[in-house]
Amino acid sequence: MPEFTADFRAQLLDLFKWRRDVRQFKRDPLPQGTFERLVSIASLAPSVGLSEPWRFVLVESDACRVAVRECFNACNKDALGGYSGERAALYAQLKLEGLSDAPCQFALFVEPATAQGHGLGRQTMPVTIEYSAVAAVTVLWLAARAEGIGVGWVSILDPAEVAGILDVPPGWTMIGYFCLGYPSAESPSPTLETEGWEYRSDSSASIIRR
Amino acid sequence: MPEFTADFRAQLLDLFKWRRDVRQFKRDPLPQGTFERLVSIASLAPSVGLSEPWRFVLVESDACRVAVRECFNACNKDALGGYSGERAALYAQLKLEGLSDAPCQFALFVEPATAQGHGLGRQTMPVTIEYSAVAAVTVLWLAARAEGIGVGWVSILDPAEVAGILDVPPGWTMIGYFCLGYPSAESPSPTLETEGWEYRSDSSASIIRR
Repeated sequence: MPEFTADFRAQLLDLFKWRRDVRQFKRDPLPQGTFERLVSIASLAPSVGLSEPWRFVLVESDACRVAVRECFNACNKDALGGYSGERAALYAQLKLEGLSDAPCQFALFVEPATAQGHGLGRQTMPVTIEYSAVAAVTVLWLAARAEGIGVGWVSILDPAEVAGILDVPPGWTMIGYFCLGYPSAESPSPTLETEGWEYRSDSSASIIRR
Repeated sequence: MPEFTADFRAQLLDLFKWRRDVRQFKRDPLPQGTFERLVSIASLAPSVGLSEPWRFVLVESDACRVAVRECFNACNKDALGGYSGERAALYAQLKLEGLSDAPCQFALFVEPATAQGHGLGRQTMPVTIEYSAVAAVTVLWLAARAEGIGVGWVSILDPAEVAGILDVPPGWTMIGYFCLGYPSAESPSPTLETEGWEYRSDSSASIIRR
């Protein structure tokens, strides 16, 4: 059984702090086999009933990438329309994705109807299938950052449209679309904070007692 | 900017492997302040629009703990009723929670109506609010294990009933109920695998290309 030292825990804390949502990527490709290796690490994540419901769709074709970018542009235009005044001006300035530059891109789906796990643990909370995939991508994100690779989560997309673009099997549910690559700049501060959009809260405010 | 070494990455991989879902706990209490510290680390997780929607409900009272246990027992009995034959016999043998022994227990909720983040990133995928909380608890889980503390995720619960037991503000959504404590035994293999319920798949089977 491994003993994790205080030194390891300090570095782990650094990893959590520097695991940022990256939207500015260099175009350099990732080393051959990186994606597959990161998926194998992500698959160590917890999953409800050991269902391992995650499905990674590696998006390599120009046609798919262009269509996803157009989907983002349309959804982002709609989102901008929901703000007004200074907030709208600030929103319009934010760079919210790295779809044009990130050398590696994948969509994450789940297969809710998977027989694996025999339904254990998800009768009362079927959404735990989706939560399992989120745990996996959180692990992937940390493993990637430990290698200097940045990850950006793009959620400003129409999931049904992306499922159509990528022609995934019917019934799959999209969790998110992810950009991977080497960041062109790094900081432990969230971009939304440095850009003045929002600020972190004191974590003690998120605790109540019963 | 931190450089993570090959040695750190090897230990990180060990952490991912040994981060197990724990259902057998010693009753020893956690050191004072552990929960609050783990929550502060969890709060470094990514969240949609920097909304930090996670709400940690620390469950300390006997009345609440007993009621949650009764809720589990009822839901688990229903779940057992969904299996038959050998599968039902196997299910009945599984220990799926550590609610009687875990010294620290919390429920994780989100506040979907939070103003924090100004709605950014969640117009087309509102469920990203829930996904943010899952990322946070995944980080907490890893940070805990690095300190030798085990975490068990209990999903065999009626979320509406637990929200009532814990009297949380209206509109909050339950993500899960978690047991924390020192494990009474440890292994890098999932319990569901050692018990013969389900087996890990080859991660390469979860990848498709477009």
